[in-house]
Amino acid sequence: MNGNETGAFTPKLDNVAIAVAEGGIALGTRLEGGIVTLESVPQGHKVALVDLKPGDAILRYGQVIGYAARLLPRGSWIEESAVVLPKAPDVDEIDALPFSPPARDLAFEASLDRELAGLSGIRFEGYRNPDGSVGSRNMLGIVPSVQCVAGVLNIAAAKIEKELLPKYPHVDGVAALNHGYGCGVAIDAPNAEIPIRTLRNLARHPNFGGEALIVGLGCEKLAPERIAPSCAGCQGRAAVGGGAAAAPAGASDIVILQEQAGFAGMIATLMAEAEKRLERLEARRREAIPLSELVIGVQCGGSDAFSGVTANPAIGYAADLLARAGATVMFSEVTEVRDGIHLLAARAADPEVRRRLLEEMRWYDVYLANGGVDRSANPTPGNKKGGLANIVEKALGSIAKSGRGVIEGVLSPGERSYEHGEGRRMKGIVFAATPASDFVCGTEQLASGIVLQVFSTGRGTPYGLAMAPVIKIASRSAIAKSWPDLFDLDAGKIATGDSTIEELGKELFAMILDAASGRYEPWADRHGIANDLVVFNPAPIT
Amino acid sequence: MNGNETGAFTPKLDNVAIAVAEGGIALGTRLEGGIVTLESVPQGHKVALVDLKPGDAILRYGQVIGYAARLLPRGSWIEESAVVLPKAPDVDEIDALPFSPPARDLAFEASLDRELAGLSGIRFEGYRNPDGSVGSRNMLGIVPSVQCVAGVLNIAAAKIEKELLPKYPHVDGVAALNHGYGCGVAIDAPNAEIPIRTLRNLARHPNFGGEALIVGLGCEKLAPERIAPSCAGCQGRAAVGGGAAAAPAGASDIVILQEQAGFAGMIATLMAEAEKRLERLEARRREAIPLSELVIGVQCGGSDAFSGVTANPAIGYAADLLARAGATVMFSEVTEVRDGIHLLAARAADPEVRRRLLEEMRWYDVYLANGGVDRSANPTPGNKKGGLANIVEKALGSIAKSGRGVIEGVLSPGERSYEHGEGRRMKGIVFAATPASDFVCGTEQLASGIVLQVFSTGRGTPYGLAMAPVIKIASRSAIAKSWPDLFDLDAGKIATGDSTIEELGKELFAMILDAASGRYEPWADRHGIANDLVVFNPAPIT
Repeated sequence: MNGNETGAFTPKLDNVAIAVAEGGIALGTRLEGGIVTLESVPQGHKVALVDLKPGDAILRYGQVIGYAARLLPRGSWIEESAVVLPKAPDVDEIDALPFSPPARDLAFEASLDRELAGLSGIRFEGYRNPDGSVGSRNMLGIVPSVQCVAGVLNIAAAKIEKELLPKYPHVDGVAALNHGYGCGVAIDAPNAEIPIRTLRNLARHPNFGGEALIVGLGCEKLAPERIAPSCAGCQGRAAVGGGAAAAPAGASDIVILQEQAGFAGMIATLMAEAEKRLERLEARRREAIPLSELVIGVQCGGSDAFSGVTANPAIGYAADLLARAGATVMFSEVTEVRDGIHLLAARAADPEVRRRLLEEMRWYDVYLANGGVDRSANPTPGNKKGGLANIVEKALGSIAKSGRGVIEGVLSPGERSYEHGEGRRMKGIVFAATPASDFVCGTEQLASGIVLQVFSTGRGTPYGLAMAPVIKIASRSAIAKSWPDLFDLDAGKIATGDSTIEELGKELFAMILDAASGRYEPWADRHGIANDLVVFNPAPIT
Repeated sequence: MNGNETGAFTPKLDNVAIAVAEGGIALGTRLEGGIVTLESVPQGHKVALVDLKPGDAILRYGQVIGYAARLLPRGSWIEESAVVLPKAPDVDEIDALPFSPPARDLAFEASLDRELAGLSGIRFEGYRNPDGSVGSRNMLGIVPSVQCVAGVLNIAAAKIEKELLPKYPHVDGVAALNHGYGCGVAIDAPNAEIPIRTLRNLARHPNFGGEALIVGLGCEKLAPERIAPSCAGCQGRAAVGGGAAAAPAGASDIVILQEQAGFAGMIATLMAEAEKRLERLEARRREAIPLSELVIGVQCGGSDAFSGVTANPAIGYAADLLARAGATVMFSEVTEVRDGIHLLAARAADPEVRRRLLEEMRWYDVYLANGGVDRSANPTPGNKKGGLANIVEKALGSIAKSGRGVIEGVLSPGERSYEHGEGRRMKGIVFAATPASDFVCGTEQLASGIVLQVFSTGRGTPYGLAMAPVIKIASRSAIAKSWPDLFDLDAGKIATGDSTIEELGKELFAMILDAASGRYEPWADRHGIANDLVVFNPAPIT
């Protein structure tokens, strides 16, 4: 896709509109501007504002989302089959462009500063960790190096919750991670670094306070020492790295089931190790922390055509506010930014950030091609039912979550922001390259260090994470009303004119600070809803 | 590997021996035949029985497991670095050979028949299903089409177990499957058929009695209708196949969370649907069933050098007995048969079975190569510590589980034996092609319809399955003694001369019938240990 073909760098006015009303728009309805619908248009779907000839560009968000597959007189319903998918933006072409610093909207920045000055509570209440990270919770983390131990761990975790946790009221919970990696995998494959790094960084999650217990079997491919939290300055604790043979001083951070005396011995050891950690965790207290230490993630799932005009821009506004206040906001989902990469590249802080953005796009292009597909495999039946014709339209709506500000950094899947780039901590708006799959993106963002996630959805999903609070935002009011005990915010009010992007963004900003401080408990947490962690493993299994 | 180079088709005597004693063999120990050890040899490891020059073939199981990397005088410890990995058997070369029917050992067959005639209880007590399959348990199965619903399902399943299950004493339990598939996946990728078929067949598992409840979100890639149990002859039940748009008569088999009134509505609907099924399941009773209706799987994990001479041959003997009695015994783990494929090809019942065996090997070769690895990525640090120098030695020990009999059929990952091959049910010894990863192999064998699994291990793993009983056999007595509350059988007695392969095989045969009949509860089940299901997805995620 080049500039001429798509107008990629020359935003134009849209030539389609979205049906906002809950029942859609009936045939023969007169719209603003005198257009009369030639068909009934379902809610969230597009209607042509001009006569479109076959091959004419269909414009939404000022971008070409596709080309008319047939004659589409104004007033037509532009359903999926009427839209020809454009080529993805050419990464090499963007790479060849001279770098220009991102255009700054000084008036917008000043407006953000005014909002921040007017908001109280610009600090949040978090748990400070020895490694400099800050948690939003005080949890006992138990991290298996391999799925084989999960059966025993689940039993131990339930027993810890029931018998030990009540004695430690300052500990928020037990998170016994469960994942499908660790053995029967090609541990030295070129892409194996991704799942290994993910697990290592999950074990170092800020909400575990540097106290995660690693549980290994003893004969697995992924030696437990490789994921044990590195704790510089903590004497006698496990070091990251090393193979199966390594038996570092930090062996006390690791329980090996093959070394235990049967099932009874395994449970006894796990209970004892858990209690040691609970005692230490119990002494911890929240303290006031500047926003520059807050790391959150944003994600969308089960999106519809409203997501990109209601929930996601509100999240984007909150992200801009947070970044302006010094916080770190990760957005992700490679296949859902791929078609807007030209827009993101133009926001890169420096040439290195642009290079890294493009590098992650190339990596994923190759990964998908190796499996015989491309980014068009992304949209779901639900996305399409919700009015998203293709991945371009989905992507343009998805990237709205990243706000308008400068993109300060890029993380590969599962990389941590804390010590990335030779000790330079990555702050502001950061692209954390992950798959778009909700549960995989959530897992990888947790590994990257988020202590809270904001999740928008139009179709509705009961998504939740055990390790961190998840604030859920509805893109349309119908789903928010139908699931009152699952949504924390209703961005559908933006579509109906009952709120604005900025108002809802400010509401979300305040809710993020409250949830990160333990003052607000999102709905998913109240019910204890948690998806499994699904680690991204692009390498083969054996 | 050709015949000359490896002696693949001309078994010779071994030129290495295995150190059996628990502490290994000390330096300077005189062995049978007058050989004196030149180094201490750890338990399970190999000692040279002849002088080996660099490049000389190292023979175990009458097969070349590798070549001497250096001068190895007799009495030397043959550790991993002393063994050069041979090439894998050439699939095309085997394919080009004229087919010969497998050699039958009539004396062995007659001895099996004598054993079977002498054994009482040649039937087992199972649950007959409308589709002709027979279960070993009477369970309520709940199968999510997508990971997004897992958080809610887990809460519902705990509530069902606590509040409903006690009212239905004839129902053995609730299995709410948990998997990482269903959305954010390339659903039309060439290899996507594998995970989809796996989930569809898990939902049809014999232990669910055709009553599995499918739970979908509503916008996921994997439309729930595609995995709903097909129930020919059951009026108003869901049909297999169809896409997102399909809303078959069997919608009552499917709960869609997006259609429920919030979290409270989801839980209420799931409880109501569960109770309906529990009422029907409660009426079921075990009945005497001929062994021809029994389908079991065999697997090894955390193997050592004993596995191939104790536990696995005992499993093989039980498999031969079962197959002779008409039962179906699946063995699996492609990378662990790959180096013995010439031996399996010679046991193929007919040219089509041989072709299918080779086809599955080729598929996996390509799959691994696409990820930049080969079958040598299989052995684990634990395998090597246990004396297995490489994948050839591991594979030769692994295939011992399949017994000596004719291989009657081949299943691709997740395919069911019941209706394979145009209605012809596949019986006897069957190769179910799966990855070797324990939890993936277990998942795929369950999808293929096993109602019980036999699992051998030398290093020790607390492996278990929620859907079917798992009998665990130790390959050496040390681990069996150290885990008395996890192992059902100790095959280490074969190494110490306290039992024979045949005796232990017969003991296992009887235990399989008892466990399948609910008369014996294996240790893993008594504790409720269950690994997660991990579906094999060789296609990309998006």
